[in-house]
Amino acid sequence: MKLYDCATAPSPRRVRIFLAEKRLTVPTVQVDLRNGEQFTPTFRALNPACTVPVLELDDGATITDILSICRYFEELYPDPSLIGQSPEERALIGSWLSRIDWDGFYGAMDAFRNSTPGLKARALPGPEPYEQIPALAERGRARVQHFFAWVDARLAENEFICGPKFTIADISGMVAIDFAGWARLTPPEHMAHLRRWHAAVSARPSSKA
Amino acid sequence: MKLYDCATAPSPRRVRIFLAEKRLTVPTVQVDLRNGEQFTPTFRALNPACTVPVLELDDGATITDILSICRYFEELYPDPSLIGQSPEERALIGSWLSRIDWDGFYGAMDAFRNSTPGLKARALPGPEPYEQIPALAERGRARVQHFFAWVDARLAENEFICGPKFTIADISGMVAIDFAGWARLTPPEHMAHLRRWHAAVSARPSSKA
Repeated sequence: MKLYDCATAPSPRRVRIFLAEKRLTVPTVQVDLRNGEQFTPTFRALNPACTVPVLELDDGATITDILSICRYFEELYPDPSLIGQSPEERALIGSWLSRIDWDGFYGAMDAFRNSTPGLKARALPGPEPYEQIPALAERGRARVQHFFAWVDARLAENEFICGPKFTIADISGMVAIDFAGWARLTPPEHMAHLRRWHAAVSARPSSKA
Repeated sequence: MKLYDCATAPSPRRVRIFLAEKRLTVPTVQVDLRNGEQFTPTFRALNPACTVPVLELDDGATITDILSICRYFEELYPDPSLIGQSPEERALIGSWLSRIDWDGFYGAMDAFRNSTPGLKARALPGPEPYEQIPALAERGRARVQHFFAWVDARLAENEFICGPKFTIADISGMVAIDFAGWARLTPPEHMAHLRRWHAAVSARPSSKA
């Protein structure tokens, strides 16, 4: 198998951290997003959505969704468990993941992609040249602030996002917060729980993956 | 357990069809989205994101994400399989689901919510009053057209979205297309594969769930 990655991008970082927590190494190919390698015919043949990460299996099948790649590795290598050990646990972790994507990841994406001069007509990842929408950058900033607030409230009562155990939700949450930093959005000083947790998850060796 | 539903809404419809295909019935509570029941303190306590579907388990835990609810039932009741029978199959179906959400569901949502007079300040589901952005309605319409095109191309070579078997991707794809219809977006006449498939999945008794 082969992981198509981009060392500087937030989406594949979620997979890299996940693999590091599992102590797995996978042969990796760097895709030069900055110079548009994702739009070449070769890469489009691999993933018509022109995004990374992509996990190419030995039979040529391609897994193009972050969480599907992580779940695939979790099924193959269940220890340490990062996605839950029972149907209930998996469903609850999945629900938190979805909320993190919704306000955290999509909010940061809208804030960053709709306001960065170098990303004109790149307001969404993928092959279509969607123009920036300034009001969407504004909305993204608001969504990220709400994200900060609910994660902080959640962490007032839990060591990690899903409870007492580190899970994939902490990986996604940390990456979403760091991505929000690209749009100059950082958790306010007074959110002590969020800041305590962010420092702790960032101190894990996996965060450098 | 208890499923919080809204009989007219596309998101819980995905769960209802999934359950119908599994021949499962779950005690259901209708939430009156039209009159804002999702914003009442009672419902917020259940799901602070103010969305349906929600599956409340007997211990009070709440699963608030569509796909997590479906996966939970798939794990409990594996037959008929709708999400894949091996790690590879689950990862590939998950990748198609993610593409369907991305352009199909989010495109339809943006097109509809940002252009419907009755949804002012309701441009996103959830508790925050985000204003409509006309340019986002426009972008949503474009995304849906791309969605139609890739699904049609996919169905030129496959009976169903993931291949020879009906899966959860067909449920999500059909609901996304019907939701796009709320924004008066329908697959063009010339997309014969898409129309053939849409007629076939719509003819299944589950589609009425």
